[in-house]
Amino acid sequence: MEPEEMAVQEEADAQLKYLVERPVYDEAFMRTQLLHHKEKKATSLPRRLAQRLQCSSQKAKAAALSFLPILTWLPAYPVKEYLFSDVVSGLSTGVVQLPQGLAYAMLAAVPPVYGLYSSFYPVLLYTLFGTSRHISIGTFAVISLMIGGVAVREAPDDMFYTLPANGTNMSAVLDVTARDAKRVQVAVVLTTMVGIIQLVLGLLRFGFVAIYLTEPLVRGFTTAAAVHVCVSQLKYLLGVKTQRFSGPLSAVYSMKAVLCDITSTNTTTLILGLVCLVFLYVVKDLNERFKKKLPVPIPGEIIVVIVSTGVSYGLQLSEEYKVDVVGNIPTGLLPPSLPEFSLLPSLITDSFAIAIVGFSMGISMAKIFALKHGYSVDGNQELIALGLCNFVSSFFQTFVITCSMSRSLVQESTGGKTQIAGLLASMVVLLVVVAIGFVFQPLPQTALAAIIMVNLLGMFKQTRDIPALWRTSRIELAIWLVAFVASVLLGLDYGLLVAITFALVTVIYRTQSPKTAILGQVPGTGLYCDVDEYVEAAECVGIKIFHSNSSIYFANSDLYLNKLKEKTGVNPAHIQSARKARKKHKHKENHNRDLPIKISIKDKERGVTHEVVSYNHASEEKKNGQLVDRHSEADSEEAVFLEPLCSIHAIILDWSPVSFIDSVGAKAVKQTIKEYAAVDVQVVIAGCSRTLLAELDVLLFFTGSMTPEMVFPTVHDAVLHCQHLTACPSDAPTSEA
Amino acid sequence: MEPEEMAVQEEADAQLKYLVERPVYDEAFMRTQLLHHKEKKATSLPRRLAQRLQCSSQKAKAAALSFLPILTWLPAYPVKEYLFSDVVSGLSTGVVQLPQGLAYAMLAAVPPVYGLYSSFYPVLLYTLFGTSRHISIGTFAVISLMIGGVAVREAPDDMFYTLPANGTNMSAVLDVTARDAKRVQVAVVLTTMVGIIQLVLGLLRFGFVAIYLTEPLVRGFTTAAAVHVCVSQLKYLLGVKTQRFSGPLSAVYSMKAVLCDITSTNTTTLILGLVCLVFLYVVKDLNERFKKKLPVPIPGEIIVVIVSTGVSYGLQLSEEYKVDVVGNIPTGLLPPSLPEFSLLPSLITDSFAIAIVGFSMGISMAKIFALKHGYSVDGNQELIALGLCNFVSSFFQTFVITCSMSRSLVQESTGGKTQIAGLLASMVVLLVVVAIGFVFQPLPQTALAAIIMVNLLGMFKQTRDIPALWRTSRIELAIWLVAFVASVLLGLDYGLLVAITFALVTVIYRTQSPKTAILGQVPGTGLYCDVDEYVEAAECVGIKIFHSNSSIYFANSDLYLNKLKEKTGVNPAHIQSARKARKKHKHKENHNRDLPIKISIKDKERGVTHEVVSYNHASEEKKNGQLVDRHSEADSEEAVFLEPLCSIHAIILDWSPVSFIDSVGAKAVKQTIKEYAAVDVQVVIAGCSRTLLAELDVLLFFTGSMTPEMVFPTVHDAVLHCQHLTACPSDAPTSEA
Repeated sequence: MEPEEMAVQEEADAQLKYLVERPVYDEAFMRTQLLHHKEKKATSLPRRLAQRLQCSSQKAKAAALSFLPILTWLPAYPVKEYLFSDVVSGLSTGVVQLPQGLAYAMLAAVPPVYGLYSSFYPVLLYTLFGTSRHISIGTFAVISLMIGGVAVREAPDDMFYTLPANGTNMSAVLDVTARDAKRVQVAVVLTTMVGIIQLVLGLLRFGFVAIYLTEPLVRGFTTAAAVHVCVSQLKYLLGVKTQRFSGPLSAVYSMKAVLCDITSTNTTTLILGLVCLVFLYVVKDLNERFKKKLPVPIPGEIIVVIVSTGVSYGLQLSEEYKVDVVGNIPTGLLPPSLPEFSLLPSLITDSFAIAIVGFSMGISMAKIFALKHGYSVDGNQELIALGLCNFVSSFFQTFVITCSMSRSLVQESTGGKTQIAGLLASMVVLLVVVAIGFVFQPLPQTALAAIIMVNLLGMFKQTRDIPALWRTSRIELAIWLVAFVASVLLGLDYGLLVAITFALVTVIYRTQSPKTAILGQVPGTGLYCDVDEYVEAAECVGIKIFHSNSSIYFANSDLYLNKLKEKTGVNPAHIQSARKARKKHKHKENHNRDLPIKISIKDKERGVTHEVVSYNHASEEKKNGQLVDRHSEADSEEAVFLEPLCSIHAIILDWSPVSFIDSVGAKAVKQTIKEYAAVDVQVVIAGCSRTLLAELDVLLFFTGSMTPEMVFPTVHDAVLHCQHLTACPSDAPTSEA
Repeated sequence: MEPEEMAVQEEADAQLKYLVERPVYDEAFMRTQLLHHKEKKATSLPRRLAQRLQCSSQKAKAAALSFLPILTWLPAYPVKEYLFSDVVSGLSTGVVQLPQGLAYAMLAAVPPVYGLYSSFYPVLLYTLFGTSRHISIGTFAVISLMIGGVAVREAPDDMFYTLPANGTNMSAVLDVTARDAKRVQVAVVLTTMVGIIQLVLGLLRFGFVAIYLTEPLVRGFTTAAAVHVCVSQLKYLLGVKTQRFSGPLSAVYSMKAVLCDITSTNTTTLILGLVCLVFLYVVKDLNERFKKKLPVPIPGEIIVVIVSTGVSYGLQLSEEYKVDVVGNIPTGLLPPSLPEFSLLPSLITDSFAIAIVGFSMGISMAKIFALKHGYSVDGNQELIALGLCNFVSSFFQTFVITCSMSRSLVQESTGGKTQIAGLLASMVVLLVVVAIGFVFQPLPQTALAAIIMVNLLGMFKQTRDIPALWRTSRIELAIWLVAFVASVLLGLDYGLLVAITFALVTVIYRTQSPKTAILGQVPGTGLYCDVDEYVEAAECVGIKIFHSNSSIYFANSDLYLNKLKEKTGVNPAHIQSARKARKKHKHKENHNRDLPIKISIKDKERGVTHEVVSYNHASEEKKNGQLVDRHSEADSEEAVFLEPLCSIHAIILDWSPVSFIDSVGAKAVKQTIKEYAAVDVQVVIAGCSRTLLAELDVLLFFTGSMTPEMVFPTVHDAVLHCQHLTACPSDAPTSEA
């Protein structure tokens, strides 16, 4: 809206009249006279069940379509419009899929060829079951690292040192083949488990679990993952041979180990790695800068792989310069085999962490693209799809996959329209696996490390969140930082747990640290605002309106009531003790100077009014309130001169922000209302929602001295009622109308 | 209030008029015209600090008084009025303190005399530091059992089997002395740690931690503790010698061990125990029944102790019948000694659990009495007091104490007025320790077991909560049951952790499973109620008012928006796709039958009105809404006949129950409002509190197409605004006034 239009609009609104004229209602009246419950058409249980379970061909079709989304879109695939862009996108993605598969296998602590398997089977399956048209399924750095952590923990280097067969006193030798075989077993069975968990969660419609991974948490977590990945790749980049660590503080230990061994850096490796790193960075930058001019992005990664493989092969880097290379890549696929389920028990917690993280990465990316291109993804079906991908593929020796951010961006930006692109990318990988995999055997590991590190840049950029969050929300900044620090120090699994717990605790904290205020009326509007905040808000004489923006339950009911006493300045215990002290005084000295004051205040003629009393009253009243407070606290001597019970005769609890109450809260409030009643301060409740009232009924709140007459639909109703009571202090009404 | 008075009151209220006549406000107007922020008198930081840190004799005195509450009440102690009742109460309590001390030492897995120490030192100290006048500090079953669990875990029987010195192949012998010494060390160092934790928490003003222990949780937990205590005492009652278990499932193991060994029951022990049990039960019942007639309750426990000691001594039960007796009770007190701090590391988590449970037991009892007798207790000072009691006493070989429920009731009901009673009770214990402790050496353990078990009756009665909670609050019942089951099965420490976590999760759950409703106006009142619930609530034509009783944050923003789309029946994605389908259709067939309908609806003359439109409109409108929904979902063919965008033109979000919003929620809402705007449905927000508006400002909610003009102080304002918009569909106003 243009500024001019706004002004005009305002004018139009100003003509709009808000006019409500009706009697003051209380809850008792609302219940008996005003509102009537609708009769519920109670559908009988058997009938409802029958409706639910009714089978029809339509239902069956819908179920089949939702389980196999490919049946929805493939028959309607517009070959002419889509096929070309899908082919271009598929080939570009495949070309990225390949080096990433090799590189992320290193992160997962398994031989590179398993990364290729993982880039083929699941991608194929996702085409059938996935609902997102643009994400690129396959190996992903964070998940691979988490797998690697588990694999290293379950099959540490120590387990595989064997003494040489001839039995001499030489130092033990690491049996790499046996170690890697074991690690593959661990990764595969972990993948099966992750698949089962995701599948079951999906079938149980638990797709909503991802909501606990709030954005600041995910961003802090992935930044921490980037740190872990970076640290773990440092040794490959330097060509230093150190142990791989897992568990809490593993990043610190890894860093320390690399630094201790920094002198054994292989210069050739380092130079090669740095060259790759710089080249990839420049290519990435160029791709970013000339996004619109380039038909497809420059495939920097595949160039690095091909050139470095060529250089390595030509210069015999492995033999001559001791540069670590990828090594044996068997040609062809492996026959399916059963995972080693005996390893399962120690992996269950890890599986849960990986399953949840994997899913949440996938769904968040899928949602972004769905929003951009105007279709919808189904969280539960995504879970089922990922679960099936992981579960089925694991029988073909893959490790856990999910959607990779960098690759998905490639797939989408090169014009991918459907998962046909993903399918083609997997075919590219298949081609390499069955035909020319062995070509990559001389590929230096340092080149892969460079590929991984450059792919992390986007994640490190997330640190820019920190100043932004500092300005908007400290609590969310805290979540970000806790997720980051915990994940860096404790490892990704415990880090995630700590972060989720912390995020949930912040919710509790928010309900426990409510903002409280004393409200005053904005004259003539029926609206009430914080008197400390706004000039126009005027307190009503003798009435305190207490507002707190939280629900009332066990963990904050005490705080709520303490704040009530503090903010209103009316503490029944203090008044009670002041009263006692005065009685004693009276007994001793038998004077009663204070009575006239009391009467003079109560006699003030005010009448029935729908308008708030003027400013000067309010300030006078406030002074009185302060006096009462100061007196009652210590100086019982002075309390004699002033009847403390008449300056505030009513407290209104504004419960419009209260969304629920539990028995502890209800009991505490009831108790406090009684305490106030004992010192002649009437407490009434205003602005309850109907759901809250229903809850209060169930909790038997309206028993004994608590009646629905103390509840008013709006604050204004309550104020009018309380002012009326002051005007006619006796309960008996003077018949006026 | 009598019913008659109520009716009269109602009549009086009915005469009270609620009249508000003003223009319709939106937030932009409120901000610029109506409300002005008060200028904050910003006290400079140094000055505030100076004020804070200012020293004065008065402040010093107040601090001293709050740290040593005895200085407040002792100088003013009304000897004539209070002393007699305090003496009676002190002696009665002491007489209960003594057998409980002996019995609970068994629970704590330490020799009985340590129970006596624990019944003396801390009680003495509490007199100085405590703020409660009525609670009886000392050994407590639940705490003792928790200590016992730790002591047994740290010093299990297995550690102390030694082969007989002569080295023959005989079975190993349990070295009871060494074991008990070790267990005492553990208990003592645990006590030091608990003391430190409580003291630090108190000094840091962390007294509020007890609020997390909500009532159902505490009751479920203590009932579980009673089960544990009962199971652990079974072997003493039967005279069966089994191992003591600790950790998860210990109750099950203990039970199983006792049942397996049931054949070795010592009949004498069992009979003696059962006699004591029945006698104590009858005495307890008599005390309860003739509460008012008895001057002091019958001291059943001391009678049992004296008689059973006498019987045991006279009949030589220990030697002749192999009845287990208390055994060696050294006379006199031990000199102070340093706890074995080397044991500390493995005890830290336990210390936290025990410190929190101990404090929460104490404070809850103290609050009950304070409320009853009209004084106040200070949670933080109570923490400091308990901490000092535990910390200082631990140097004299005591174990953790807190307030005992059963004993506090004795102290209060026998007329105790101040902690002078507690002091006297501790003197009774001191007398026994230094003079006649040895007398109790022949006391059979089965009698102590009977004492413990009868004291548990009150806790078992808490199972009556279950049906009561079933009726009032299922969530709280769930908390009760989780606390009970987890504590029985996992042990008290893990059980407590699980229970607290669960209780906090229920809060999250409550915010995540809000009750949602579509509101309709109660004609002529400006009030809005659920249309599905109340007959009188009528929907306004073309407007949907969506109400959800929860805040909006990361874990429920998706649910909130899904519910919004579901409840209003207006889904922008569906409308969008229907629109696209129609456009296609138009292109093909080029017909436009639907235009007239659209115009006819929009042309309806309604004018500026402060009143809601009548019923029949609402129902008609609802039908339309359903139609739109059905159409847009699947049948793009039919959508052609009806412009789906005109039946609902505005959605009002009632945000009065929203107490906070985070960036994820704000972003999601903003996105959805944009989606709706794209299909020409205006979404406005109503009933925001000023604090929420401030939060929205910080989150940069009002940027781009979001303006404060979309926010209204009340739902009624928003409805009037939206109705006005329908009446004059163009933005340009027709100048009427």
